[in-house]
Amino acid sequence: MGTTQLESVQEPKYWHLKTVLSEALDSDFAVGEILPNERDLAARFGVARATLRQALEQLELEGRLQRRRGVGTTVAPPRVGVAVSTGRREWTGGVGGEAWQPVDCTMDRAPAAVAAMLGTDSTEPVHVVRRIRATHGQAVAAELLYIPASSVPELSAIDAPAGAVRARSVLRELHRLGLEGQDRSVELGSARADDAKELDRLPGAPVLVVTTRYFTADGTAAVSVATYRADTCRLTFGDSGALEISEEEQDRQAS
Amino acid sequence: MGTTQLESVQEPKYWHLKTVLSEALDSDFAVGEILPNERDLAARFGVARATLRQALEQLELEGRLQRRRGVGTTVAPPRVGVAVSTGRREWTGGVGGEAWQPVDCTMDRAPAAVAAMLGTDSTEPVHVVRRIRATHGQAVAAELLYIPASSVPELSAIDAPAGAVRARSVLRELHRLGLEGQDRSVELGSARADDAKELDRLPGAPVLVVTTRYFTADGTAAVSVATYRADTCRLTFGDSGALEISEEEQDRQAS
Repeated sequence: MGTTQLESVQEPKYWHLKTVLSEALDSDFAVGEILPNERDLAARFGVARATLRQALEQLELEGRLQRRRGVGTTVAPPRVGVAVSTGRREWTGGVGGEAWQPVDCTMDRAPAAVAAMLGTDSTEPVHVVRRIRATHGQAVAAELLYIPASSVPELSAIDAPAGAVRARSVLRELHRLGLEGQDRSVELGSARADDAKELDRLPGAPVLVVTTRYFTADGTAAVSVATYRADTCRLTFGDSGALEISEEEQDRQAS
Repeated sequence: MGTTQLESVQEPKYWHLKTVLSEALDSDFAVGEILPNERDLAARFGVARATLRQALEQLELEGRLQRRRGVGTTVAPPRVGVAVSTGRREWTGGVGGEAWQPVDCTMDRAPAAVAAMLGTDSTEPVHVVRRIRATHGQAVAAELLYIPASSVPELSAIDAPAGAVRARSVLRELHRLGLEGQDRSVELGSARADDAKELDRLPGAPVLVVTTRYFTADGTAAVSVATYRADTCRLTFGDSGALEISEEEQDRQAS
């Protein structure tokens, strides 16, 4: 019945081409290989270039192809599983080679939506810590972490006023708070220009936006808005207290 | 310093236009309103139609606009938070109006990646339960749930051989197993033709693919591959044992 249902659905031409191309990628191409140019590909599959382009866009969405300026279209490696921690000791970076690197800290206004989550006035400046996350030597996510001054009252005024050193001081103070819980949302977004640069993407590239609220007994202590590359990342979430598989196991299974 | 950094990044023309358009959506348009046609919009903002189209695509990725055949481009309502449960009693549907509706059940081969997660031979047929999830009366996700026959040994052979009734029998047997844990991954994908139809999207539309492994003491009992509309959904994840906010609260905050 599954099959019958599928056949009764009208498939656009690019969708059929996508399936054919996907099989060709499996059988005829290696990871990292550069695809023939669009004109040659369109001729090979007997389709218009517009149709070909739509199919290539689909395959890019699915992480099968990467398009890079000056290189062309290449066959993408399998996506990397990136654990979105539900642990409680994550201010100062994750486990192993998975650390978030603090790169900057400023005082700035939070976007209205973030201010609403923090319960602060949107005109009130908050600490904004910028961090970059790398996996296997490649930047996979860029984050802005918003912390109201009231969350870190012990922060020393004589510390560095900005930059990575300041970021570490703020994170250290957050760590001392004692985290009671967190919740998250994941949605589709497009890369802002500054994030795109960090992630080696063009502005507007599809990204997965992970918004996390961190709670202490007193309420929301901080909000993180992290932008993950959607082309190379698969976000993984473990269950409470049970059986989260390691990233290595997932990579092995994916390959 | 955040500002300086931003300014030093070269922004493509469509990106700048996207920002301008986004502000215009906030100030000049109401949710559900139909945008002027592309020619008029391009003229109004003094840009080429190709540039306009790129900017509209960005806004669609971000969930600000919806494009529907026969209707045109409309201003999208805020995304709906959809809780991706970490609870243990979810076989038979979620809480309140959030139920997964079982619509079909067949015996079929699992895709190779799913078979690997289940630890089964990919030539061995498994139960495939198809479910649809609706929120506020709209289908937001379509799921295929793969269950090896060995996970549900008590399943009665005299039950209905397929269809929604059969699906409920399989889910009931799964429920009896006692779930020990689960883990999940979220990644970007494009809607398959059958899912697209259920979700009222075109094949290939961006979707969020949530893959869940359900564990019992004996190992992986089932694997779910659920396709969520990326345009209208924000997936929410609560923390273990603490403070998950309800969907209603999130909706209120988003509006």
